[in-house]
Amino acid sequence: KMLGRVLCTVLFVGALPSPAGASQGHISVVLLGATGDLAKKYLWQGLFQLYMDQVSSGHSFTFHGAALAALEPGQRLMFDVLRKLSCPPDEPPNRCAVLKDQFLKLSQYHQLKTAENYTALNREIQTLLRQEGLKEAGRIFYFSVPPFAYKEIAQHINSSCRPPAGAWLRVVLEKPFGHDLQSAQQLAAQLAGFFREEEMYRVDHYLGKQVSAVAHILPFRDQNRQFLDPIWNRHHVERVEVVLKETVDAKGRTSFYEQYGVIRDVLQNHLTEALMFLIMELPANISSAQEVVQHKLNVFQSLWGLERSSAVLGQYQAYDSQVQEELQEPRGYVSTTPTFAGVLIHSGSPRWEGVPFLLTSGKALDERVGYARVLFKNRAYCPQSGTLRDAGHSQCKPKQIIFYFGHGALSTPAVLVSRNLFQPLMPKDSWKEAEARSDLHIFGQPLSDFYMYSPVKERDAYSVLISNIYHGRKDFFITTENLLASWAFWTPLLDSTSRQPPRLYPGGVENQQLLDFEMVGGGLAFTLAEPAELLNPGGQMPSDFRAIQSKFRQSPLVSAWTEELISQLASDMEEAAVSSVARSGQFHLALSGGSSPVGLFQRLARHHYGFPWQHSHVWLVDERCVPLTDSESNFQGLHRHLLQHVRVPYFNIHPMPVHLNRRLCVEEDGGAQLYAKDIVALVANASFDLVLLGVGTDGHTASLFPRSQNGLEGAPSVVLTESPVKPHQRMSLSLPLINRARQVFVLVLGKGKHDITTLLSRVGHEPSKWPISGVSPSSGQLVWYMDYEALLG
Amino acid sequence: KMLGRVLCTVLFVGALPSPAGASQGHISVVLLGATGDLAKKYLWQGLFQLYMDQVSSGHSFTFHGAALAALEPGQRLMFDVLRKLSCPPDEPPNRCAVLKDQFLKLSQYHQLKTAENYTALNREIQTLLRQEGLKEAGRIFYFSVPPFAYKEIAQHINSSCRPPAGAWLRVVLEKPFGHDLQSAQQLAAQLAGFFREEEMYRVDHYLGKQVSAVAHILPFRDQNRQFLDPIWNRHHVERVEVVLKETVDAKGRTSFYEQYGVIRDVLQNHLTEALMFLIMELPANISSAQEVVQHKLNVFQSLWGLERSSAVLGQYQAYDSQVQEELQEPRGYVSTTPTFAGVLIHSGSPRWEGVPFLLTSGKALDERVGYARVLFKNRAYCPQSGTLRDAGHSQCKPKQIIFYFGHGALSTPAVLVSRNLFQPLMPKDSWKEAEARSDLHIFGQPLSDFYMYSPVKERDAYSVLISNIYHGRKDFFITTENLLASWAFWTPLLDSTSRQPPRLYPGGVENQQLLDFEMVGGGLAFTLAEPAELLNPGGQMPSDFRAIQSKFRQSPLVSAWTEELISQLASDMEEAAVSSVARSGQFHLALSGGSSPVGLFQRLARHHYGFPWQHSHVWLVDERCVPLTDSESNFQGLHRHLLQHVRVPYFNIHPMPVHLNRRLCVEEDGGAQLYAKDIVALVANASFDLVLLGVGTDGHTASLFPRSQNGLEGAPSVVLTESPVKPHQRMSLSLPLINRARQVFVLVLGKGKHDITTLLSRVGHEPSKWPISGVSPSSGQLVWYMDYEALLG
Repeated sequence: KMLGRVLCTVLFVGALPSPAGASQGHISVVLLGATGDLAKKYLWQGLFQLYMDQVSSGHSFTFHGAALAALEPGQRLMFDVLRKLSCPPDEPPNRCAVLKDQFLKLSQYHQLKTAENYTALNREIQTLLRQEGLKEAGRIFYFSVPPFAYKEIAQHINSSCRPPAGAWLRVVLEKPFGHDLQSAQQLAAQLAGFFREEEMYRVDHYLGKQVSAVAHILPFRDQNRQFLDPIWNRHHVERVEVVLKETVDAKGRTSFYEQYGVIRDVLQNHLTEALMFLIMELPANISSAQEVVQHKLNVFQSLWGLERSSAVLGQYQAYDSQVQEELQEPRGYVSTTPTFAGVLIHSGSPRWEGVPFLLTSGKALDERVGYARVLFKNRAYCPQSGTLRDAGHSQCKPKQIIFYFGHGALSTPAVLVSRNLFQPLMPKDSWKEAEARSDLHIFGQPLSDFYMYSPVKERDAYSVLISNIYHGRKDFFITTENLLASWAFWTPLLDSTSRQPPRLYPGGVENQQLLDFEMVGGGLAFTLAEPAELLNPGGQMPSDFRAIQSKFRQSPLVSAWTEELISQLASDMEEAAVSSVARSGQFHLALSGGSSPVGLFQRLARHHYGFPWQHSHVWLVDERCVPLTDSESNFQGLHRHLLQHVRVPYFNIHPMPVHLNRRLCVEEDGGAQLYAKDIVALVANASFDLVLLGVGTDGHTASLFPRSQNGLEGAPSVVLTESPVKPHQRMSLSLPLINRARQVFVLVLGKGKHDITTLLSRVGHEPSKWPISGVSPSSGQLVWYMDYEALLG
Repeated sequence: KMLGRVLCTVLFVGALPSPAGASQGHISVVLLGATGDLAKKYLWQGLFQLYMDQVSSGHSFTFHGAALAALEPGQRLMFDVLRKLSCPPDEPPNRCAVLKDQFLKLSQYHQLKTAENYTALNREIQTLLRQEGLKEAGRIFYFSVPPFAYKEIAQHINSSCRPPAGAWLRVVLEKPFGHDLQSAQQLAAQLAGFFREEEMYRVDHYLGKQVSAVAHILPFRDQNRQFLDPIWNRHHVERVEVVLKETVDAKGRTSFYEQYGVIRDVLQNHLTEALMFLIMELPANISSAQEVVQHKLNVFQSLWGLERSSAVLGQYQAYDSQVQEELQEPRGYVSTTPTFAGVLIHSGSPRWEGVPFLLTSGKALDERVGYARVLFKNRAYCPQSGTLRDAGHSQCKPKQIIFYFGHGALSTPAVLVSRNLFQPLMPKDSWKEAEARSDLHIFGQPLSDFYMYSPVKERDAYSVLISNIYHGRKDFFITTENLLASWAFWTPLLDSTSRQPPRLYPGGVENQQLLDFEMVGGGLAFTLAEPAELLNPGGQMPSDFRAIQSKFRQSPLVSAWTEELISQLASDMEEAAVSSVARSGQFHLALSGGSSPVGLFQRLARHHYGFPWQHSHVWLVDERCVPLTDSESNFQGLHRHLLQHVRVPYFNIHPMPVHLNRRLCVEEDGGAQLYAKDIVALVANASFDLVLLGVGTDGHTASLFPRSQNGLEGAPSVVLTESPVKPHQRMSLSLPLINRARQVFVLVLGKGKHDITTLLSRVGHEPSKWPISGVSPSSGQLVWYMDYEALLG
């Protein structure tokens, strides 16, 4: 009976059956690049699988292979591939033979090169359908072509090959989707000119291929909410690792690889996706592609920006010579393309704050394996000694959940949960519990320590993807927004490391501990020192420059490139804070607003865990007369970049009272006097431990402007002033109060400040012309922090 | 030559030699309790060791054993002990014989019972010295007697047996030094009436006995500062464990043990001391006893107070019957004295915040061992797979420093440092590097993973202590201040757990995992549920009670045991917050102060990571007119228990303005009106999303007291009120404002509230008598959360 039905849908060169009443309509699948590698290896097989699965679904199909080659040679190439298609082992051989025969009859080759070719294809499909009296359900265009060809093909499809109204269009795109944020935006904009968002299916094949474990992360979290809810957070999770190790190298692919490197090839897409599934807030409905995407985007929002120090990069030793050979580069050619990367990612979300996420991938490593692993903290103490303890599933043993993508010791995808955590709920139809083998070890533990599940049936990634496309399930495809968010996250790291020489490694087991890395400060560093000095780019700046220029206006000067300068300043501030707390139990810090200190604030928040915030008081040097919640408020900037990330007690935070009685800086509300009183009440001798100042191009500092009537001298220690730029009204500490401080640091950054620093180096004490020149602590210390650009132009 | 000199100092019954010019003076050692157990086992041997060490120091000695027994039997008993004294193995036998003979000649027995006895002793010493023309250097009185005898002996020594001016007095006291803070204070005050602080040497014999490892903690930290400085903090240390496990039980000692228990016996003194050495800030000069004590006291200052939940307690099963037998208690007698304890200690210092310190000790455990162990976090990732990684000393292996007190697997005191940390500097004369045996394992690692050092020569603890007393080195003795600080720290835990039934355990290896415990919330709990119901105080309560009583005063009622109730309330609050943020983008929450919500605040801070704090506004329901930083301030409590742990933006925190113009709740400052204006400006319709209230025993709620003139009705939405208890002045939301809320939750906890809840269940709307009865949201929902004790008494 089944055979009858199957034969009933056979069609070839017009041999379409009359539609049964049950027909769901016809689907045309067009595979662009039908004779390429990917098509040969996976895509045709995936389409055949789709046909086998859906042959009795009520849809009818035609399959159109397309390429640039002329009809005859193309056809020959394509059918060579099709003849090698195979059925799954559980398919009866005679049914397999019949299905394969039908599939071949439903397939044909087209040359798609010119606009006319596309028009012709469109006409053919329409003719066929009309002849057979079939309704068109939709068309799938699978782009198995290089990205540079996307635009033209997209244009042709849009103008000549769209299905009629009522039928859908699905175009399937393979990575790479751009090279960085800008190129990805460009590509996205191009495609958006031809296709609607819901028509595009961007494949991350990694999400299917051998990695049902990745695809199962969200369902696992959903089905095991009851167990995970209490522990899926920073209080219980020690770290998250997402790792893809390869033994192969880039040989034969260097023309691609040299442009991309490991971060673009693996981390930006595959590993990031897996991480998202692990750390996103769990959507109420995980089947809603829209909810899932929204939650992913929220994760990107919560991640700290990557800096150069967030990554360690390596390159296997043979890479350069492979590039020289394959790309005809000269012998001396040195590539900085990384083939190994470890990246440390931090989230600022309440759930994950402080938990390190480590993404690692590399070629020419010691084994082929991929996994996403959540390690839990040991929160137990077990008084029984070791041997006895290990008998059971003690809480003192390591606890982890591993989504094992495949290969490695297990050589199968798997989900593993430590037995001392919980027995997970798994869908019985697709995952089976594996035998508890104690002879196999994973991450130093016998497999018998885990509940382990492996897929009942391993399906090829492309079969899964093609089936999802057919069903219009968009969950595992990358939306434009998602793609751009990911590029926005990764591009700064790619930019800042683009000219950084990676550490060379020999490859394979020879790597030993050369690639071990550690968290240091807020970033990563290789554990072992570089075995030999390899490359030294840049470097024309004398490293002892700082020693040369050690004074500015008779006070100590610290000068360096911006990043190092800020790092030095932050360390010096921490040292001042620690010694102040040691001396007096507290630290009174007055901070300036504006854009210069933003980098400093971020650095303090992220790298200075030893800073005694609990014992620090934070005061403002000056404030704009706007509500505290206004984006122009200095306090608002300070809050966003620093205060919300550190633990300063509420009572120790002292915004300026510019908004009393629900109005701004009205003289009679006495805000300035109130602030002055608070200072006298809390700060010993009204002498701040540290005041951080900046300098304006006009020589102003704090909100003390040239020729100001207030604050340059005289008694009031806090004053209202007028700024030449908006918002005009300001509140500011006065020069005499600033000069009572124990330490005053002045931070000057950027080329734009070069003129004023040059001028300041020549003039004397003239605060009414240049208020900054009046900064001269009566018994404290003044230090200038200038970056090279401010100092040297 | 040496022998001549030795003989030269021989004295017996007046046979004192004429003093050589080199004589440093004479020292009389008086051992009180000379025939007791401790004296027999350790003290005489220690004194003999002192004599051997110091015989050529220039001091001359006499040793006076004393007890209550009459001269003749006492003398016999004592000399029986003395005759058994032994020399160390490295002493030549003939020298040993000579020295022992001399020591016996220098020793005599005294009955010390009455004032006259002491006067006689004093006279004897003086006569002897005069006859021999010796200068008196000092007197040592070693109290090897029960604490109840201290006072009388101290009085006698002080009044009749002090050495003359110019010579020192040292009295040596053995623990216990009190039973809790009060008794320790009493004892300290008594002793202070007779001795100066510097005259008292309180022995913690644990600091010498078999535990050169404890005594070496500070020197180790000092000598290895360069390695430890960067890692000895919360960023690198995962936890600290101080453990003393015993296999013996309390049999034969229950008369002592039943009064003390494991916390007083071991944790309050020995383990605390070891912990102090580990976590104190390192003094610049570790030989300065004064600096060391000061740093210890600072540690006590920094520790969080212990609560009932800070400890897990156990008792070995045979204990009760041993007590019944030894103390002639009736058969049904049940003791709650713990013989096992695990305690979690937290420090609030910037260095240690968040690092758990676990102290554990018990009798009848599976092995005898003691150690202090600092475990470091793994901050590395090692891309090479397991087997290869373990070859070297990878950063990915566990890292720890262990001060091993003795016994256990190593059966020697030792200091162990993981090889992937650093090779420590150790004093070569007293510590030798041990062989790297890979057949022995410690904490799951082969010994070969460590640098291991053991003492060159193990000295008996009492020899060390007596030598320190002789040299006047006070470092390892407990000062009064130190002692009282330790009792002040431990007494609240002892009080709160005094009637708590400990978990019973069978003893030895049979304990299995029964005593495993975990950190849960901020405290500890046994991992396994109690195997059988053993003791069930109370317990008449039906578990489905909550279903029975579902209404209270016509509103929904949630009732449960306190802990579950709080957990339910916290979840309901999170749900309210999440849905409010989903609806309006923000959540306006008004919270009450007082003690009832503290557990709730802690639960919210520690368990509700999904709470949308970033979008929440926190308001106060009422406030006491004290500065915000005052410990009586509601806001201060809210800050301590909740706000400092979560991420509410600064601008969204709204303390009541009770402290305007630097004065408290002055009508004309208009604080109440200001708060009302802020509410109108920020909260839509002045309708809070959630108001959390409590109830006083007099029926007050918020700070609205019975017969209050303000706030029960009428327009002002924020009012100043008068409380019948101090501080009298209050600021409070009014009933009409509260009744505008979308939801009002009332939390009522504890037996003390049973009467008022009973009353409230019967009365109607009478806010002037019982303000809480006026809570009746006009369009919102009211829910009562009452624990069983409040509801049922």
